[in-house]
Amino acid sequence: MAEPKNRRPRIAVTNDDGITAKGIQSLAEAMTEFGDVYVIAPDSPQSGMGHAVTFSRILRLHPFEFGRGVKEAHACSGTPVDCVKLAVAEVFGEDNLPDLLVSGVNHGSNASINVIYSGTMSAAVEGAMCGIPSIGFSLLDERWDADFSASIEVARTLARAVLERGMPSGTCLNVNIPKLSPEALQGIKICRQAMGHWRDTFDQRQTPGGSPYYWMRGEFHNPDKGEDTDIHALSKGYASVVPVQFDLTAHHTIGTLNGWNLGHED
Amino acid sequence: MAEPKNRRPRIAVTNDDGITAKGIQSLAEAMTEFGDVYVIAPDSPQSGMGHAVTFSRILRLHPFEFGRGVKEAHACSGTPVDCVKLAVAEVFGEDNLPDLLVSGVNHGSNASINVIYSGTMSAAVEGAMCGIPSIGFSLLDERWDADFSASIEVARTLARAVLERGMPSGTCLNVNIPKLSPEALQGIKICRQAMGHWRDTFDQRQTPGGSPYYWMRGEFHNPDKGEDTDIHALSKGYASVVPVQFDLTAHHTIGTLNGWNLGHED
Repeated sequence: MAEPKNRRPRIAVTNDDGITAKGIQSLAEAMTEFGDVYVIAPDSPQSGMGHAVTFSRILRLHPFEFGRGVKEAHACSGTPVDCVKLAVAEVFGEDNLPDLLVSGVNHGSNASINVIYSGTMSAAVEGAMCGIPSIGFSLLDERWDADFSASIEVARTLARAVLERGMPSGTCLNVNIPKLSPEALQGIKICRQAMGHWRDTFDQRQTPGGSPYYWMRGEFHNPDKGEDTDIHALSKGYASVVPVQFDLTAHHTIGTLNGWNLGHED
Repeated sequence: MAEPKNRRPRIAVTNDDGITAKGIQSLAEAMTEFGDVYVIAPDSPQSGMGHAVTFSRILRLHPFEFGRGVKEAHACSGTPVDCVKLAVAEVFGEDNLPDLLVSGVNHGSNASINVIYSGTMSAAVEGAMCGIPSIGFSLLDERWDADFSASIEVARTLARAVLERGMPSGTCLNVNIPKLSPEALQGIKICRQAMGHWRDTFDQRQTPGGSPYYWMRGEFHNPDKGEDTDIHALSKGYASVVPVQFDLTAHHTIGTLNGWNLGHED
């Protein structure tokens, strides 16, 4: 549980669609209700960057006039995970972590297996790895001018809950919001990640000079019909909340693998 | 368990250091002992790309003369995960998956939390998501001319085991090898991921024109003193094998979160 603090909470805000996206503008403005808001977000779209990190190229961090009641904002040349690392090291300091990190609101779903490809969610996971209570928000609408009003109601509810209660150790939250008005939203459900996956195909095209190249296009398949999944909750008009961990160990298979007797053990 | 096949196994090989790295050359050559080898690897270094995927830029795939007994090789302009997606869709076909995917041998450790930043391991995770038994190998030596002989012995042992037994559903293996000669290697241990993390600092420098920029530099910290971790096994001279899953749900915290009563539930 979070301990009561005698100062106004400090809230870090990032995303993967870039610092000018409507989703982060709406989210950062909403967070000013709860504390002092610091935006550190990519200076260009970084969707699909997963947990990529920039250590073999340089990074830049520019002051940015965000407005909307935000205390301080920086645009970063790197990935969402780079933004979190720079926020911790250069904006807050490792001994002075923010009370909450929110990422998004992403323009598009990060439910099910999308959590692993998502820059939005990787920023939240990196926040959790740094010990910051962290939440990623995604709206099931990819349009640049999507309506974030239901997302912001959900973000308020969860930010309030996490600031009051803290976060279970080693986890962050993956929150997806259906494309509905606040009135039509059915509520919030705690879920597990549906075990869906992408079937990818590639459009092969030719450059004007005749060289082949590819565009990736995927189709999402979800054979997981469980009623406790994020995909199911979203289909019923609920916002889904999946607790996400960064311990990737498949603990339940360690016994099986020990049975393989790979040898050389004492 | 894998079913016996009446044909020679087909083995996909990728990495994140790029198709010309010594680690993938050694690994691909070693795999020819077990089957027909197909290399699909990045045309340039892709370390630290995590699970990044390229859908807003084009991808290229060039035939590559790999030699070393490899049946077919392609250099790809994208990330390690792109390589796996292209291999499945364009090289093998979704209904004709390879019997094994191996990634690496990475020049440098992917033990503990590094699994989440690693292009090498993200390729193996993507392989598992596609239903291919997949293993990532990493040597604790970043040098370009590192000695991969112990790594190759470990890779042979694990490739043989996985081709015979298959892989527990929804998992792949993260294998790290200490910087030791084959004679000095103590054996192979099944482990969990040590709960270590990077403390990042940034060197701030100036361009010749006077603009600030940053270089990321991290220091790895491991407060996890468990004797069942990969870091512990490696410190004792063992190769570590961690089963890795792509269900990121923190199932053990769902009860706690339901207790938050976020409301609006039926």
